[in-house]
Amino acid sequence: MKRVYDFEEGGKEMKALLGGKGAGLAEMTKLGLRVPPGFTITTQTCIEFFKAGGRFPDGLWEEVLEHLKRLEEKTGKRFGDPENPLLVSVRSGAPISMPGMMDTVLNLGMNDEVVEGLAKLTGDPRFAYDAYRRFITMFSDVVMHLDRHKFEEIFEEEKRREGVKEDPELSIEGLKRVVERQKRLYEELTGKPFPQDPYEQLRLAIAAVFNSWNNPRAVKYREIEGIPDDMGTACNIQMMVFGNMGWDSGSGVMFTRNPSNGEKGLYGEVLFNAQGEDVVAGIRTPLSIEDLKEVKPELYRELEEVAEKLERHYRDMQDVEFTIERGTLYILQTRTGKRTARAAIKIAVDMVREGLITEKEAIMRVDPKQVELLLHKTVDPEAEKTVIAKGLPASPGAAVGRVVFDPKEAEDWRAKGERVILVRPETTPEDIGGMVASEGILTSRGGMTSHAAIVARGIGKPAVVGCEAIDIDLEREFFRAGDVVVKKGEIITIDGLTGEVILGEVPLVEPKIGGELETLLSWADKYRRLGVWANANDERDALKARENGAEGIGLARTERMFLGVERVALVRQMIMADTPEERRRVLEKLLPMQKEDFKRILKVMDGLPVQIRLLDPPLHEFMPSESEILARIYELEKGGAPPERLEEERRLLEKVRKISEANPMIGLRACRLGILYPEIYEMQARAIFEAASELKMEGYDPRPEIMIPLTMTHRELEYIKPIIEKANREVAEKYGFRIPYRYGTMIEIPRAALTLDKIARVVDFVSFGTNDLTQTTMGLSRDDAQGTFLPVYLDKGILDEDPFYTLDIEGVGQLLRIGVEKGRKANPRLKIGICGEHGGEPKSIYFLHSIGLDYVSCSPYRIPVARLAAARAALEEEMEKKD
Amino acid sequence: MKRVYDFEEGGKEMKALLGGKGAGLAEMTKLGLRVPPGFTITTQTCIEFFKAGGRFPDGLWEEVLEHLKRLEEKTGKRFGDPENPLLVSVRSGAPISMPGMMDTVLNLGMNDEVVEGLAKLTGDPRFAYDAYRRFITMFSDVVMHLDRHKFEEIFEEEKRREGVKEDPELSIEGLKRVVERQKRLYEELTGKPFPQDPYEQLRLAIAAVFNSWNNPRAVKYREIEGIPDDMGTACNIQMMVFGNMGWDSGSGVMFTRNPSNGEKGLYGEVLFNAQGEDVVAGIRTPLSIEDLKEVKPELYRELEEVAEKLERHYRDMQDVEFTIERGTLYILQTRTGKRTARAAIKIAVDMVREGLITEKEAIMRVDPKQVELLLHKTVDPEAEKTVIAKGLPASPGAAVGRVVFDPKEAEDWRAKGERVILVRPETTPEDIGGMVASEGILTSRGGMTSHAAIVARGIGKPAVVGCEAIDIDLEREFFRAGDVVVKKGEIITIDGLTGEVILGEVPLVEPKIGGELETLLSWADKYRRLGVWANANDERDALKARENGAEGIGLARTERMFLGVERVALVRQMIMADTPEERRRVLEKLLPMQKEDFKRILKVMDGLPVQIRLLDPPLHEFMPSESEILARIYELEKGGAPPERLEEERRLLEKVRKISEANPMIGLRACRLGILYPEIYEMQARAIFEAASELKMEGYDPRPEIMIPLTMTHRELEYIKPIIEKANREVAEKYGFRIPYRYGTMIEIPRAALTLDKIARVVDFVSFGTNDLTQTTMGLSRDDAQGTFLPVYLDKGILDEDPFYTLDIEGVGQLLRIGVEKGRKANPRLKIGICGEHGGEPKSIYFLHSIGLDYVSCSPYRIPVARLAAARAALEEEMEKKD
Repeated sequence: MKRVYDFEEGGKEMKALLGGKGAGLAEMTKLGLRVPPGFTITTQTCIEFFKAGGRFPDGLWEEVLEHLKRLEEKTGKRFGDPENPLLVSVRSGAPISMPGMMDTVLNLGMNDEVVEGLAKLTGDPRFAYDAYRRFITMFSDVVMHLDRHKFEEIFEEEKRREGVKEDPELSIEGLKRVVERQKRLYEELTGKPFPQDPYEQLRLAIAAVFNSWNNPRAVKYREIEGIPDDMGTACNIQMMVFGNMGWDSGSGVMFTRNPSNGEKGLYGEVLFNAQGEDVVAGIRTPLSIEDLKEVKPELYRELEEVAEKLERHYRDMQDVEFTIERGTLYILQTRTGKRTARAAIKIAVDMVREGLITEKEAIMRVDPKQVELLLHKTVDPEAEKTVIAKGLPASPGAAVGRVVFDPKEAEDWRAKGERVILVRPETTPEDIGGMVASEGILTSRGGMTSHAAIVARGIGKPAVVGCEAIDIDLEREFFRAGDVVVKKGEIITIDGLTGEVILGEVPLVEPKIGGELETLLSWADKYRRLGVWANANDERDALKARENGAEGIGLARTERMFLGVERVALVRQMIMADTPEERRRVLEKLLPMQKEDFKRILKVMDGLPVQIRLLDPPLHEFMPSESEILARIYELEKGGAPPERLEEERRLLEKVRKISEANPMIGLRACRLGILYPEIYEMQARAIFEAASELKMEGYDPRPEIMIPLTMTHRELEYIKPIIEKANREVAEKYGFRIPYRYGTMIEIPRAALTLDKIARVVDFVSFGTNDLTQTTMGLSRDDAQGTFLPVYLDKGILDEDPFYTLDIEGVGQLLRIGVEKGRKANPRLKIGICGEHGGEPKSIYFLHSIGLDYVSCSPYRIPVARLAAARAALEEEMEKKD
Repeated sequence: MKRVYDFEEGGKEMKALLGGKGAGLAEMTKLGLRVPPGFTITTQTCIEFFKAGGRFPDGLWEEVLEHLKRLEEKTGKRFGDPENPLLVSVRSGAPISMPGMMDTVLNLGMNDEVVEGLAKLTGDPRFAYDAYRRFITMFSDVVMHLDRHKFEEIFEEEKRREGVKEDPELSIEGLKRVVERQKRLYEELTGKPFPQDPYEQLRLAIAAVFNSWNNPRAVKYREIEGIPDDMGTACNIQMMVFGNMGWDSGSGVMFTRNPSNGEKGLYGEVLFNAQGEDVVAGIRTPLSIEDLKEVKPELYRELEEVAEKLERHYRDMQDVEFTIERGTLYILQTRTGKRTARAAIKIAVDMVREGLITEKEAIMRVDPKQVELLLHKTVDPEAEKTVIAKGLPASPGAAVGRVVFDPKEAEDWRAKGERVILVRPETTPEDIGGMVASEGILTSRGGMTSHAAIVARGIGKPAVVGCEAIDIDLEREFFRAGDVVVKKGEIITIDGLTGEVILGEVPLVEPKIGGELETLLSWADKYRRLGVWANANDERDALKARENGAEGIGLARTERMFLGVERVALVRQMIMADTPEERRRVLEKLLPMQKEDFKRILKVMDGLPVQIRLLDPPLHEFMPSESEILARIYELEKGGAPPERLEEERRLLEKVRKISEANPMIGLRACRLGILYPEIYEMQARAIFEAASELKMEGYDPRPEIMIPLTMTHRELEYIKPIIEKANREVAEKYGFRIPYRYGTMIEIPRAALTLDKIARVVDFVSFGTNDLTQTTMGLSRDDAQGTFLPVYLDKGILDEDPFYTLDIEGVGQLLRIGVEKGRKANPRLKIGICGEHGGEPKSIYFLHSIGLDYVSCSPYRIPVARLAAARAALEEEMEKKD
């Protein structure tokens, strides 16, 4: 069996035998790139080595020597020859990457004679002795397992003796003394002199590389990662090249395209008469590759050829390390280049146009999260800025505006044309108007899924939340961040991408969604199976949704339409009503308002489905709090208010107490209200059908769908359906034609998911409300968990991710899977969607695709992300099927 | 094919062909009982009849005539013969009972001549003409579908004409006039004279019975009950017998044993010279069967023989209808007799002893719900009582005591030896002391699963809840029920079985669990697979649990041990603590108290497992409410209290606000608290192990098991385990030996059930907490649903049953099934139990048995119920397997 392969003999498909590194070097060699030549001892040999009790199997050494001879022939250098010495590196390389586990010995082949020869050859004795010093240290450590610190300490001592600080300052004499002392130390510790025979060095190094497979660190790593112990490691022996052999030598890195903006053309830098590490250290300023065009046009052309060859072969932008030794270009390594979001998109689209990759591949090259970053303004990276605090980056984008502390005031200022940033300890549902009116939101409390964070992401406003470094004084209207005091009206900038709060105005960079993103998304639309819809509560949201490519509205919340001063007053009247008749009278007044809201949305979404969710929250959300009223009563008592006034407040207090609940999230709300007070849903259904009828008469094509929230049993849906049907018939009588509609429900309760077979027989569609479903399935009140134990759970690793951000696939996902299976079986025409926060989160989208949902519905701002993620999910599935 | 069967030819196994009634009559005939002879036309013939378009199939009539002839021979009477007429009944009888759907014609064979003959034969012309009148009415209605009211109206007119009120008062002449007029009416309506030919009557009646199978009422009934339309009905023709043919005739009913107490011996009554309906009408006082012993010893002996024969044959106590016609005893019907709970048990056990049935059959004869009724005091059914209001019968048993309105006062009065009834609008966890001290609880609000109801059932106290008819004035300490005012200290009686509230003291009957129940339960223990454990929080509960046969404690709630004035104060200190050290200092003071509690329980349960649940409720349950503190602050302000005092209250207010939660049920509680404040669980674990250690030194065998509440992910259990282990080790060091224990958790969150495979690898046992699991799985806050939409849901049939009382098998049950399956697969040695309310509910127990739980844990008072239900579940399963 062949145990040793020259690089020319291998290839990337031989990873199991040659290890990752060996296969990569072989691939580049085969590609015709000038790679420093060498050979690889197979992983199988490593296993043989262990089986033989840690000894070279018969014939191995002879085979190594044979390949070494060929290496000498190829390079024209000779192992141990001071005139023209061949130095090699010896490295391990397993089939599966084990970063940090690899043992490496550089400059092997060095000895007392070779070092002299090398000094002469390079004209740089410092370089030669430094290389020798490093070799002794590495060899003693890696091969002989001696204490590395003792060898390094000698070097430090010599530096101290000469009174120098930096390594290169040590004199040549000093370096020579280091080498001598290190050799003596070696002899003291091992009882043998430092091996001068390069062959002995090599033999020991190969054995050490093999043995490193079983060092405790590597064993532990394999155990954790589940890598089999009997894979073994390969051992690569490769000629050393030096970029510091004079001014016709050098080292550099290059990207085959601009990693920042994706433009085509080489990008990178080179440093002459220097080693790779010198480029990184930044001792001298390197040349940009661009400049090579004039300075060394031939080298530039050679690099261009390499770049083209690599891109054509690897079909992606490459990040290449190279060394020029005495005018000869060597390629040391190539790998896929990291890039910015913008570059990723441009490169992917360009490469399709260049015929390098397919549309599908282009889609797989762009991470949806990168797309999300592109859709927002960012702080100009060049700008100066004074960061005064840092919070959680809750909603991406940057915003500049005057600080206001009151949501109402934010609306007023906005009306006057002022841009504002709303600063609050935390936000509540009542603040929604002020949040919409602001450029961005800054809170001192709450987490990534606090009210402020969720709403901000939903309405596409930048937000920094939980910024505990600021101290807000709402009464005196300022906040303090360390020594800095920011008063109402002063300008700040917030960066929702980094969480930074910056004093004053910083220039922002507008999001530039080049044509490339649109092109990429149009390809994504071709391949995705999941529909992408939007959650939109009003006309503005709906417009944004259409603009971003939504195919429908998956959640239009009707209760948000009950907000606003006039409407809240009516809703409170309705709640205070003692009889259905009284309630109906108030509802009659709300009807035209709701109708107007529905008309606006349905008009924008002309021809597309709009799923309108009937009233969902518990009634007390529309009422003042108990302690608020109590405080008012005590004030009125103190002030000697008229008894009628007091009586009124007392009545209110009584009502609020009566409807107060222990656990409102799972109390009297949603369809439970609709069943207890059927007149509410009746009014809403009428408003929907009347809105649709009037639009139809205007020539539009409205497609309303009615969605019942918080279903627990299919019988609730059976109970409500006739109420909707009746409204539909009555409106049909009024207008002379009937509005077709679809009837559906949200699945937000585990029981509903578990009995989706029964539900599916009553409805046309279901939509998983994964926000509430996460709360019920995990027994986790979002509001209560957020500020208390959820951060602790994430910190201690009890939860891997915030389940309100990324779907809890193990738990909630299991219910979704059960539900989809049962629902489809019972009603094959059932449409199944999701309208929780997770509908716009890529990782969740993958899962939702895999269980066969029809569509996801998310914030209008996340639609591009969802379109791309959905396409990638479909393509990955396609690839898996092929495998 | 044979279409007609004499009763002698059939049997109970021929129900499909002969119908239920026909098969029953045949069975009794075969048994050698004297049943009025007759024959049955098969259900198949009915189907043939329809196929032939509603006509008699060829040969049927001849076959009927043949059997009629045999009937004449058997009875010695002749059809249509005035000398000795054979009258028959013609009745339908389907294979599946369809009560109220059956058409029946009695006295068929009557005509103008026969009526005269019958008058002569009985010497009672009134009886004869009355029978004729009834026959014409029935025939016209059932066979000819004429308007029955018109026929009855004639009778009423004649009564009016003679100025009499009661039917029997009408003169014979009057009756004759009725018959004449009815026959005329018949002719007017049908155009034909009333048929005088008995054979024509019979033919028409048979056809009518067949046709009744397809009357709309019957069709609808079959549709609802899912009975196939092509079964058809049989038609039974049977000789009429008359108990009113003189003083050697009579009618009666008897039970083969006493249905009230189960004693062996005939029980019932007989009325001579009377028909069955006369016994029911109660015109004369019947004789008790007992009295027959002396009056008619032969008849008594004959009845005894019948009873013995029937019991031996049917192997159960029978309820028998009989008629004596001229000294001859006829058995008309026998069926299994209804009986009281006590009788059911005694009869079942006696019958095993008599060798009539097996132990297993005895178990299947007693409904667990009957057993429950036996375990409580009841109101003496003979006693006079003044019921002043009625509420929901929330917890069985009756109680007498003085009314108190304050739980604290209840404790004080109890201490003075006074028996009290606690009367409250509703109860809260703080009232527990007062509830325990009371004989019974009466509330004006709340449902069957309100706090008062659940706690009362748990501690075995009678309770009437939701008694809205009473108006409680807590301040002035009285309640009003209609006109009646009951003040503090006055005596009332409440009946938790009927919901009655009774003025004054009514004598109660002590529960008498005869030896029979113990015997029955000992048999149940032999056959059940489910273990039966108890939920017990203190020594008293534990004693009751052992007494009732508990095999362990499945839920010992530790937080109840934090109640009581001194401890609550400490718990509040702990909550107010700002640092873990401060918290630990307070916990140190709580430790000896908890240890003492644990010692008491473990001592009582010596040798049996005790599952102790660590702290479960949210902290604010130990704190005063926000509005309570607010009110106090305003009072203090008004009264000009010292600023330190105000400051203290403000600090408390701040803390209460800080820990207040939107949805505490799914907020920061249970193991989430244990993870946030590990020192709490640490203290509890130490208290448990120290208690066990000290008991062990005293020679006991304590078996503590530690149960973590509200697990959401297995990682919580992994996180807490080392805390418990450490306490275990430390206590072991202190005492010099280690207490073995088991580690487990409650499953109360859907996610935990769905991931029970992972949880099973961390624990030794899990216990489904189906109270909370119902709340989370159904998204149903018990506290909030109870008084609002749950009653509406039950009323409208949206839910069939209160899911907090009977397990929601469709939803919650599905999770249990998934959980058990996953848990067992991952850890075959996992013990699985349940400790929710459902653990003592028979219907739920059946399900829990079927999915393979190891044990149920319930209130100590329901243990006998659970033992029996568990045995029945096992036996039913055994029978199903045989089928």
